Amino acid sequence: MTGEPRIGDVFGELLRDVLAVQTGIGPRPMAGGRLPRPVIEIIERDDGLINGAPAAHYLAGPAEWQPYDHRAVDRVRGETLDIGVGAGRIALLLQERGVPVTGLDTSLGALKVCRRRGVRDLVHGTIDEHVADGRRYDTFLLLGNNLGLIEGRDRASAFLAALAALARPGAQVIAHGTDPYGTTDPVHTGYHELNRRRGRLGGQLRLRLRYRELGTGWFDYLVCSVAELADLVRGTPWRLADVDDRDAPYYLATLTLAG
Amino acid sequence: MTGEPRIGDVFGELLRDVLAVQTGIGPRPMAGGRLPRPVIEIIERDDGLINGAPAAHYLAGPAEWQPYDHRAVDRVRGETLDIGVGAGRIALLLQERGVPVTGLDTSLGALKVCRRRGVRDLVHGTIDEHVADGRRYDTFLLLGNNLGLIEGRDRASAFLAALAALARPGAQVIAHGTDPYGTTDPVHTGYHELNRRRGRLGGQLRLRLRYRELGTGWFDYLVCSVAELADLVRGTPWRLADVDDRDAPYYLATLTLAG
Repeated sequence: MTGEPRIGDVFGELLRDVLAVQTGIGPRPMAGGRLPRPVIEIIERDDGLINGAPAAHYLAGPAEWQPYDHRAVDRVRGETLDIGVGAGRIALLLQERGVPVTGLDTSLGALKVCRRRGVRDLVHGTIDEHVADGRRYDTFLLLGNNLGLIEGRDRASAFLAALAALARPGAQVIAHGTDPYGTTDPVHTGYHELNRRRGRLGGQLRLRLRYRELGTGWFDYLVCSVAELADLVRGTPWRLADVDDRDAPYYLATLTLAG
Repeated sequence: MTGEPRIGDVFGELLRDVLAVQTGIGPRPMAGGRLPRPVIEIIERDDGLINGAPAAHYLAGPAEWQPYDHRAVDRVRGETLDIGVGAGRIALLLQERGVPVTGLDTSLGALKVCRRRGVRDLVHGTIDEHVADGRRYDTFLLLGNNLGLIEGRDRASAFLAALAALARPGAQVIAHGTDPYGTTDPVHTGYHELNRRRGRLGGQLRLRLRYRELGTGWFDYLVCSVAELADLVRGTPWRLADVDDRDAPYYLATLTLAG
């Protein structure tokens, strides 16, 4: 036996269990079938690094959010697409505020959790697939570090082109990113070096998620500096209009449609 | 890149970080170098199952223990060997009570944490290696589910023989186990079936631990029913004198030297 996971909807299963813990409804994770245990998200990096983190934050209410999340939602205007809606924490607040918000996710399990929590407008798929649906937006949200979804040099231009195709005139993107280069931890600086040697951006993480018997395939997730982001945006229909780095190394990047 | 970890002292690194979080001394795990995050122990099973669990319990004081731990320490008498001493939570209470206790562990990092927390008598190695040291004991503790260290049919008799070689007349073993067969979760019942097909005990887990960039090799860890334990003890110098299953599926097994 190799210890390899079965490919499946890791994120959906994880969020279903977090919801069960939070509501007390449905089967919950137990140790020895008896003692409740927290839901832990496990992330593997392709150099062998592994990290576990409690997953409850995906369902956290605004009172528990980081300050940049509040500043991000305060920037929202008009028809809004929440990309990687997850368990819907951001979408639920926007709904409450009367913002017309659509939640997009590739995880069917995540959408099910959103539905049960009251998010009304949900779309399954990628942004590329969503272009054909004919819906158009004024604001695109990439929160919860989801600037990472631009993956790297290759994917970034196609990703930003798809957003432009979904955009109304004057549209904006509000993206949460993290500058990865402040660390002196050799586990991370060594990985950044390795990435550059293989022609990738330093913080272009190759990851997979695991939960219980399930794993995702390996995928790229970009953690980049503001300078790298500015480079990636150049030549796309977007321009980097504002960077809020009051909570460095985290930042909120605002892109607006150029021209 | 394969995502394979580097072999190292997983448990020691983990406990060092838990101690740093608890005391506020030394580098602590952070998200984005900024937000503290809990230390999570990750356990992989050879069928691809993975679990993360907060590791703080290794340093928990008696007030946070499960009831069976208290009943276990109340059974201690005489010169005591705490096998798999971990971060020393049990040994520290015994010291306080004036019990002469020795902590044994294969993890150098764990012993370092024990030392810093005040455990006085510590030995690095396996029980087999410790036989040659000439020390002899009245009580052997296998707490924190450490009955698992008997691994399975092959190792159990050698393990119990080594304990007998370390034993004074009238010695006892107090072991904490878990009956694995109460579950109906197919992820577990399927694994038990698979194990039996490959000639192993149903709950003979093949595991490795991971923490950050480190992993252990794969090892066997036995989760067995009381009936299976009784079978494994038969023909050894020990007899199964008592089973306390008041907190089923967890149980405390007491073995005494036969004859």
